[in-house]
Amino acid sequence: MELADALRVVLVASRNPLNIGAAARAMSNFGISHLRLVNAYEVAFKEARSAVRAQHVLETAGTFKTVADAVADCALVIGSTAVGNRDLHLPLYTLETAGDLIRERISSGPVALLFGSEKFGLSNDDMSHCHWLFRIPTRPEHGSMNLGQAVAISLYELRRNEGVRSARFEEPRPAQAETYERLTSLLLDILGRAGYVQERTFRSTELKIRRLIRRLRVPSADTETWLGIFRQILWKLAQEKPN
Amino acid sequence: MELADALRVVLVASRNPLNIGAAARAMSNFGISHLRLVNAYEVAFKEARSAVRAQHVLETAGTFKTVADAVADCALVIGSTAVGNRDLHLPLYTLETAGDLIRERISSGPVALLFGSEKFGLSNDDMSHCHWLFRIPTRPEHGSMNLGQAVAISLYELRRNEGVRSARFEEPRPAQAETYERLTSLLLDILGRAGYVQERTFRSTELKIRRLIRRLRVPSADTETWLGIFRQILWKLAQEKPN
Repeated sequence: MELADALRVVLVASRNPLNIGAAARAMSNFGISHLRLVNAYEVAFKEARSAVRAQHVLETAGTFKTVADAVADCALVIGSTAVGNRDLHLPLYTLETAGDLIRERISSGPVALLFGSEKFGLSNDDMSHCHWLFRIPTRPEHGSMNLGQAVAISLYELRRNEGVRSARFEEPRPAQAETYERLTSLLLDILGRAGYVQERTFRSTELKIRRLIRRLRVPSADTETWLGIFRQILWKLAQEKPN
Repeated sequence: MELADALRVVLVASRNPLNIGAAARAMSNFGISHLRLVNAYEVAFKEARSAVRAQHVLETAGTFKTVADAVADCALVIGSTAVGNRDLHLPLYTLETAGDLIRERISSGPVALLFGSEKFGLSNDDMSHCHWLFRIPTRPEHGSMNLGQAVAISLYELRRNEGVRSARFEEPRPAQAETYERLTSLLLDILGRAGYVQERTFRSTELKIRRLIRRLRVPSADTETWLGIFRQILWKLAQEKPN
C-alpha cells in the first residue's frame, strides 16, 4: 500500500467550514484523497464544499459519529497535539520522526491521522484511540496552529521524502483499530463482572484499559484467538450466580 | 544572525485578510516576526489584525509600495512559485533544498521570502527581484496552494532542522521473559477454569498460549497492571462453584 492510498485524514469535531475546506485543499495539493469527519457540524461540512479545487476530496469524505467508527479499518492511529507537556499517556514524536515511523509501517494497512477541534484539540477520549501522538515543532509560547495549516504541514512532511524509503524487514502485521476496540470492550465486560471495575470510576477505567490494550501489539493473525479467549472468559463469568 | 532574526516574510499584493492573518499566525507559531506587505489592500491588512495571537507580528509589519523597497536591506531574495514548467529565467529548487541553501547563507544578512497574490502568484516583475525560486512539492495537477498554508509549510521546513531537534522517543521497554511466563501461567489457569483448555490437549494449548503471549509486546511499565487484571479474573472464577 502506498502512503497516498493508505492515509486517512480524520478531522474530529471541526467547527469551521474554512478549515475543513483548507484541509481538503491541502489534501488535494499533496494527492491524499481519504477525508473522514467525526461529529462535524453539518452546516460547516456543507459550506466547506466550496473549497478551491478540492471537491473530489469533499464529495467522497466519510462522516462518522465516533472516532472508533472512523478509524475502525486502520492498522495505525496517530493523533496530532500542540501540547508537549501534559500527561498524555502516549509516546509523543516530532512530525518528522512521525513521518519516518509511518513510512516504516505503511505496508501493514491504512493509517489514520487525527486532528482535533480548532478550540480544544483532541480530547483525552479521542487520544485513547491513538497508538501514539505527534507534534509540529512550533514554539512553546504559541504552539497551537490553525487547523488547515496543521494538516497542510503534516501532509507536506509525509510526502516530502517519499520514494527514498529504505527497505526493512516486515514486522508482523498488527491488528486493525476495530479489533483493539473489540478487545477493549470485551475486557471491560470481563472486568466489570470480576469486580475490577467500579461503576463510579468506569469512565476513567475505560480510558485506562483502552490505552493498555493499545500499547500491546496484537498481531493481526492472532486476533481471532484473542477474541475467542476473551469471549470464553466472559461467557464463563456470565454463567455464574452473583454472590 | 539566526534564521529567526534574518528571515523576512514578504507578501506581495495579498487580497484576503484571512490569508494575511493566517500567514502572521504561522509566523508566530514558528517564531518568525518580520512581516512585510507590498501593495496589500489596506482594508485586508486592517482586517487581518484580528488573527489569533499574531498581533505582535501584524502590529510591527512593514508596508511598502514596491518589491524593491521591501527587500532593499536583504542579502538574499527568494521567491515561491507553484509553477514548475514555465520559463522562469531563474534557478528553481524544492523547498527542502531551498532550506539548506538559506541556512548556508544566513550569516550574510537578512533573507526575504516572497509570496505572490492568491490569484496570480508572483509576477515576472516580482521574480526579477529574486536570486532564485523555490517550489513546495505539490502534485502537478493541483499545484497552487492556499497562501496561508504555503507560508506555514515554508516556515516549518526552514525551522524543522534548526537547533534542538527532539530526540526520537524510546520505544517502551518490553517486559522481561519472567513476566511473560507469569502471564502465560495465569492465563492458563484462567482458561482451565473457563473451560477453554481441555485436560488432554493441555500441553499443546500451553505452547499455543505461551507463543500467543510472547507475540504481544507487553511494555515493562504495564506488567503489574496486567498481572493484577489476570489475578482478579482468576480470583473471581475460583470463587464460583463448579456447575
